[in-house]
Amino acid sequence: MTGRLIGVGTGPGDPDLLTLKAVRAIAEADVVAWFAKRGNPSNARAIAAAHFRPGQIEEALDYPVTTEIHRHNEDYKARIGGFYADAARLVADHLDAGRDVAVLSEGDPLFYGSYMHLHVRLAPHYPHEVIPGITAMSGCWSAAGLPLVQGDDVLTILPGTLEQAELARRLGDAQGAVIMKLGRNLPKVRAALAEAGRLDGAVYVERGTTDRSVILPLAEKTGDEAPYFSLVLVPGWSDRP
Amino acid sequence: MTGRLIGVGTGPGDPDLLTLKAVRAIAEADVVAWFAKRGNPSNARAIAAAHFRPGQIEEALDYPVTTEIHRHNEDYKARIGGFYADAARLVADHLDAGRDVAVLSEGDPLFYGSYMHLHVRLAPHYPHEVIPGITAMSGCWSAAGLPLVQGDDVLTILPGTLEQAELARRLGDAQGAVIMKLGRNLPKVRAALAEAGRLDGAVYVERGTTDRSVILPLAEKTGDEAPYFSLVLVPGWSDRP
Repeated sequence: MTGRLIGVGTGPGDPDLLTLKAVRAIAEADVVAWFAKRGNPSNARAIAAAHFRPGQIEEALDYPVTTEIHRHNEDYKARIGGFYADAARLVADHLDAGRDVAVLSEGDPLFYGSYMHLHVRLAPHYPHEVIPGITAMSGCWSAAGLPLVQGDDVLTILPGTLEQAELARRLGDAQGAVIMKLGRNLPKVRAALAEAGRLDGAVYVERGTTDRSVILPLAEKTGDEAPYFSLVLVPGWSDRP
Repeated sequence: MTGRLIGVGTGPGDPDLLTLKAVRAIAEADVVAWFAKRGNPSNARAIAAAHFRPGQIEEALDYPVTTEIHRHNEDYKARIGGFYADAARLVADHLDAGRDVAVLSEGDPLFYGSYMHLHVRLAPHYPHEVIPGITAMSGCWSAAGLPLVQGDDVLTILPGTLEQAELARRLGDAQGAVIMKLGRNLPKVRAALAEAGRLDGAVYVERGTTDRSVILPLAEKTGDEAPYFSLVLVPGWSDRP
């Protein structure tokens, strides 16, 4: 009997935003694994740790590189591809030994999550389950109390890594929008919003749902850097009462 | 002391997908309220009911009309506007009396949720909090085990109520897409996907996360009707390994 692969969404940061199902999966798994940047504490582990039980095997899957090398660089692609293959092999060894493996995934596992790299490699071969999590964007618009989309609104979710012209084009065609992966892309994102006429109304949220959260109109955000755990919300529902 | 307004996301259907925070809010509120179609059981209530406590006040906010009259019809707009005003007044009376009111919202409260109509009317005047919930789309792609978007993908969320040409235009410009509000819009949605060359790969999910779920390639779905609790997923991540 092989073990079961379980992708577990841990939500955006507040441990109380774990689902009942996630809590049970974390507590019952033989192995708990997570992706992290080498040398950095894992946010997903911190969110879930209260539900670990003694004797559980912990596996940190440490990225060899993250943003030091550009993601379209061939060296980056080769190293990251090898890393995912190794991580899949490590998890597969546990599954082959009959151990259930819960892979923690910040936010929602199948929504831009690292877990997806294990899922596509292992789900065809092992029993598996994905437990959805509250996305970062959902945690952030809730923390901001910002109605995002209603009725016939289209919602566009944009990685801040896109080119400015492409961001502006899509923002000009959206009712509601969310821009993720800010980091060093903040000045470009700001310029694209201005170009699309959507800077007014845009809200900047940093570490939403945690006790270090920062929520303010993007127009009032100073500086050109934003942490990874930040995003911009552009509300739709233009005819709200 | 006025009471607190709490928008509580109940998630997509499986009661185990409630968050710890939602469970606590439901159990502690003085009043639990929800929107429903008159004469129909409330899904949100069914998801949350195990956490109700004896003596809690329950308020069903019953829509006078839903889809019998077209939403752009003036009579519909007048009746629905009056309904939201009445619902807000009813909730405000509880808040004025010092009672905390948890408004249950299927999925996520600020993501196309009915709760938003109370939020915009009451949040400026009362202490309030929004507890995010697992969205229907997240529950569905997790149930389907379908990796949706990764890396630089753009995700477009489309109401099936849009015109076919508009759906096709936006689908042709999307990496990942989710089409909600299927119902009687299913034939139009199917045609728009075909027009955009995205019918292959599209997955139909009905009542995802419940024990009556149906998950199949949209191309294999027969008939021209879909229940309200169904959606179409169009996966991105075209260069997945």
